[in-house]
Amino acid sequence: MRVRNKPWAKDYLANHPDHLVSQPETLKGNWQSRFPQDQPIGVEIGTGMGQFIVEMAREHPERNFVGIEIQESVVATALRKVVDSGLTNVQMVHTDGEAVNTFFAPGEVSALYLNFSDPWPKKRHTKRRLTSPIFLAHYQDVLASGGQLQFKTDNRGLFEYSLQGLNNFPMVFDGVWLDLHQATDDVEDIQTEYEQKFSAKGPIYQVIAHFPESTN
Amino acid sequence: MRVRNKPWAKDYLANHPDHLVSQPETLKGNWQSRFPQDQPIGVEIGTGMGQFIVEMAREHPERNFVGIEIQESVVATALRKVVDSGLTNVQMVHTDGEAVNTFFAPGEVSALYLNFSDPWPKKRHTKRRLTSPIFLAHYQDVLASGGQLQFKTDNRGLFEYSLQGLNNFPMVFDGVWLDLHQATDDVEDIQTEYEQKFSAKGPIYQVIAHFPESTN
Ligand SMILES: C[S@@+](CC[C@H](N)C(=O)[O-])C[C@H]1O[C@@H](n2cnc3c(N)ncnc32)[C@H](O)[C@@H]1O
Ligand SMILES: C[S@@+](CC[C@H](N)C(=O)[O-])C[C@H]1O[C@@H](n2cnc3c(N)ncnc32)[C@H](O)[C@@H]1O
Repeated sequence: MRVRNKPWAKDYLANHPDHLVSQPETLKGNWQSRFPQDQPIGVEIGTGMGQFIVEMAREHPERNFVGIEIQESVVATALRKVVDSGLTNVQMVHTDGEAVNTFFAPGEVSALYLNFSDPWPKKRHTKRRLTSPIFLAHYQDVLASGGQLQFKTDNRGLFEYSLQGLNNFPMVFDGVWLDLHQATDDVEDIQTEYEQKFSAKGPIYQVIAHFPESTN
Repeated sequence: MRVRNKPWAKDYLANHPDHLVSQPETLKGNWQSRFPQDQPIGVEIGTGMGQFIVEMAREHPERNFVGIEIQESVVATALRKVVDSGLTNVQMVHTDGEAVNTFFAPGEVSALYLNFSDPWPKKRHTKRRLTSPIFLAHYQDVLASGGQLQFKTDNRGLFEYSLQGLNNFPMVFDGVWLDLHQATDDVEDIQTEYEQKFSAKGPIYQVIAHFPESTN
């Protein structure tokens, strides 16, 4: 997602330290200090403009949420949504999600969300995909036992890659949806900006999976 | 697939013992005796009218094939295709594929094919699906180490169920295709009767997977 540079972004980030974490490493093992309630933390990587995480936080006051977004002007838009919502159970971080295991302690994250991640279709960019084995290893580092990774996308190639990659890692599938908006079960679907924009063009895919119990 | 009763079927089966195995249990461990060449055996369960297995046998003279079909009038049509083809590397069996592990010895099967298997959408019929855990356990009994299960279907619900079920069993995915006819890799696609009939209506899904090495 390329977006126009937003001249107000830098100042806006600087002026909202209550909702934006500037040095996530320093909170490792101590994220609950950023929230009024000590409750399970869900992390979204690649938050985009923030519709998903703000809606999730509104629907689930019994959980805390952290949104990670790498682009300054994008995270600023998401941050503004968070601030305007008045919600106290969402924090934003402006950084690269690949380092998620340097921000959170083992087991500190209860659920991980990836929505419409950049597809990086070229083979030589495989490692940048948010479902590549490198990223999965970092997710495993931080997810609590049984904690779920939830991934949805409209991109067929990325989803095929991800189903195979999660399986091979290995991860255990809790559910697979090949046309989420036609699903007949009662799966929760909080829509993202991309989802609303692209779902007319084809199916939305989703997989929910967890890491097997470690055998050590 | 419900088909009209074919009055000629019973006689046709009886008259072609060279291409139809009537007591598959008796061949357990000894299937190569049915073929001129001793070479890897691929088994298709739910052969239908036989287009896939006959084409596979034609394309792959370096392999042997066994087609299993439960309906008499359907297996008769497939058998006629086999006989008419003049191919010597295909054998048909008129029986229930669920008992595949009573027909073949451990490791006797090199590859297993399921094409457009009946979806059995009702929950109480789950056990009849050819990708249910009971069937998978029988496939594991007969497949050689690293031998692949190849499954394709147009049925979204069955494919979602199968991706999760194969993953949970566990099996290791070698490839996943969510729209086989749009695939850009060089995957082989020998089409079945159902595939030709239904592919205009939506995507054809495919997964290829193998069982992990046993750790005993
Ligand atoms: C295609 S957009 C989708 C945005 C949003 N999730 C949605 O569904 O509307 C992908 C987003 O992920 C962000 N992103 C990509 N790689 C990232 C990374 N390594 N860490 C954090 N954010 C990343 C991009 O900047 C972009 O905003
Ligand atoms: C929907 S048809 C598909 C036929 C063919 N594979 C195709 O793609 O055109 C499914 C076939 O599987 C057969 N079948 C269903 N359950 C079976 C079983 N347990 N063992 C053997 N054949 C079975 C049915 O009789 C039917 O011919």
